Amino acid sequence: MRDAIVAAAHRIAPHVRRTPVLPLAPGDAGLTGPTFLKLESLQHAGSFKPRGAFNRMLAARVPASGVIAASGGNHGLAVAYAAGVLGHHAEVFVPEISSPVKVRRLRELGATVHVTGRDYADARAAMRDRQAVTGALDVHAYDQAEILAGQGTTAREFESQVDALDTVLVAVGGGGLIGGISAWFEGRVRVVGVEPVSACALSAALAAGEPVDVDVAGVAADSLGARRVGGEMFPLARRYVERVVLVDDEAILAAQRRLWRDFRIVAEPGGSAAFAALLSGGYRPGARERVGVLVCGGNCDPAMIV
Amino acid sequence: MRDAIVAAAHRIAPHVRRTPVLPLAPGDAGLTGPTFLKLESLQHAGSFKPRGAFNRMLAARVPASGVIAASGGNHGLAVAYAAGVLGHHAEVFVPEISSPVKVRRLRELGATVHVTGRDYADARAAMRDRQAVTGALDVHAYDQAEILAGQGTTAREFESQVDALDTVLVAVGGGGLIGGISAWFEGRVRVVGVEPVSACALSAALAAGEPVDVDVAGVAADSLGARRVGGEMFPLARRYVERVVLVDDEAILAAQRRLWRDFRIVAEPGGSAAFAALLSGGYRPGARERVGVLVCGGNCDPAMIV
Repeated sequence: MRDAIVAAAHRIAPHVRRTPVLPLAPGDAGLTGPTFLKLESLQHAGSFKPRGAFNRMLAARVPASGVIAASGGNHGLAVAYAAGVLGHHAEVFVPEISSPVKVRRLRELGATVHVTGRDYADARAAMRDRQAVTGALDVHAYDQAEILAGQGTTAREFESQVDALDTVLVAVGGGGLIGGISAWFEGRVRVVGVEPVSACALSAALAAGEPVDVDVAGVAADSLGARRVGGEMFPLARRYVERVVLVDDEAILAAQRRLWRDFRIVAEPGGSAAFAALLSGGYRPGARERVGVLVCGGNCDPAMIV
Repeated sequence: MRDAIVAAAHRIAPHVRRTPVLPLAPGDAGLTGPTFLKLESLQHAGSFKPRGAFNRMLAARVPASGVIAASGGNHGLAVAYAAGVLGHHAEVFVPEISSPVKVRRLRELGATVHVTGRDYADARAAMRDRQAVTGALDVHAYDQAEILAGQGTTAREFESQVDALDTVLVAVGGGGLIGGISAWFEGRVRVVGVEPVSACALSAALAAGEPVDVDVAGVAADSLGARRVGGEMFPLARRYVERVVLVDDEAILAAQRRLWRDFRIVAEPGGSAAFAALLSGGYRPGARERVGVLVCGGNCDPAMIV
């Protein structure tokens, strides 16, 4: 899998941003140890998702009917963005809980958008019916090898930007990002997953010994609200994810406000979840532990923050 | 002056953030050449200003009455922030045009705030009267050697982050930032000033051969609306600023929207002005010219952007 991540990195390099890292100063946000925020919210389309989307499209033969995807929003934006750059038609299915900011931007990017169903899983089912008709390339939001390899490039890049990371905190929805990151680090760096209490598909899967369905709700459901984690990521998570920390909506929104107030960073709730694990004390690093935090998405209405 | 900037960098290092640089990908925002955004909007207090404020306070003996400043808002926030960290009382005078976001945050930071006068110059006059009574340390918004040296650390840091910069675009208000940056580069890197058409104190000074008063107005007046540039910066600007580009309010707001839409960066109007010079074609770099853009402040209500 590391080879696949290196290949993905070369494949997508012309199309993705090398996103910056903000090293926190001691005392920032009440934190004492060395902490590094990787601002993947500044990636094209406002989240890490174009890494996987570009990798999937560039590794496959895309038919004339183009590409098709279901998404809570961020993956759809990435697919629409990547399809636009590569000259493919894109059709995207999003559930009704998607942020209006995401739906508007999807249309601006030229995708054919269908808003349907209560959550990601409903949108995915509608997308599958449509894909059976058109034959468009299915670009999965998290459960394909090329998607994991693309998202894994985030870890490779982060490691090249910060010396001697001990730990990386990663928010988990369907698990494409943490799957790719785990595969890159292979236990060399502690990988900690962070899930909303109300959307904890990975915790449930680890407890059950296999991916199982959970109910999803809460402020981060539009980005972290997969009902079950992917089969591709699960063995990687079982082997390499050291633990999963749960954060409640209050902690997520507090982290989002803190990112804006103290750093002028706009992160959506799902993009604030990993930082919330640190601020809430859900994850307590050692005194000298070098902690990387993925701020993985910024697609929200900033008026909602303040 | 370069020695003073090195000394300032060491003095303030424990207190300021090394702000990240976002390298744009080819085609981002329609730009073809290598472009690097330095996100000084992610600095403490939401702008570059703490660099100068910390340097001034750490280089001086601060009396028991503390520090006092007049500001369009960003400098006041920096003074309040630095005073809080260093344990001094801060009194800040801001004009009525200051963004409510800035005034609210000033109070949260524990400063005594006076909202008075039409623009920065009025607030400064009121501050001088008060300072004569209290004897507090006057931390000028732009016209003191320690302030210029502190702001100049931005250039030193930028140069260490990006190889072979050819050009740096810098928004100009009273000129503390561009003064310090010019002093650091001493002509080795092309320094281009960017002023709003409706607040062009440096253009007027260069035309007149000395700092002169101008009227100030427009969307960026609360951060770039100094009536005249400082006497400390003027000889540096005359010697080392290659040119000054003017941008109108429409171009500034378009750049602000673009920074949010394409990059999820929140910049205030003044913080968007340098990028506006590039987007509007006011400054047209050569094909391979490596252009640094200072995104110098992010203190606005993000709800105003979208």
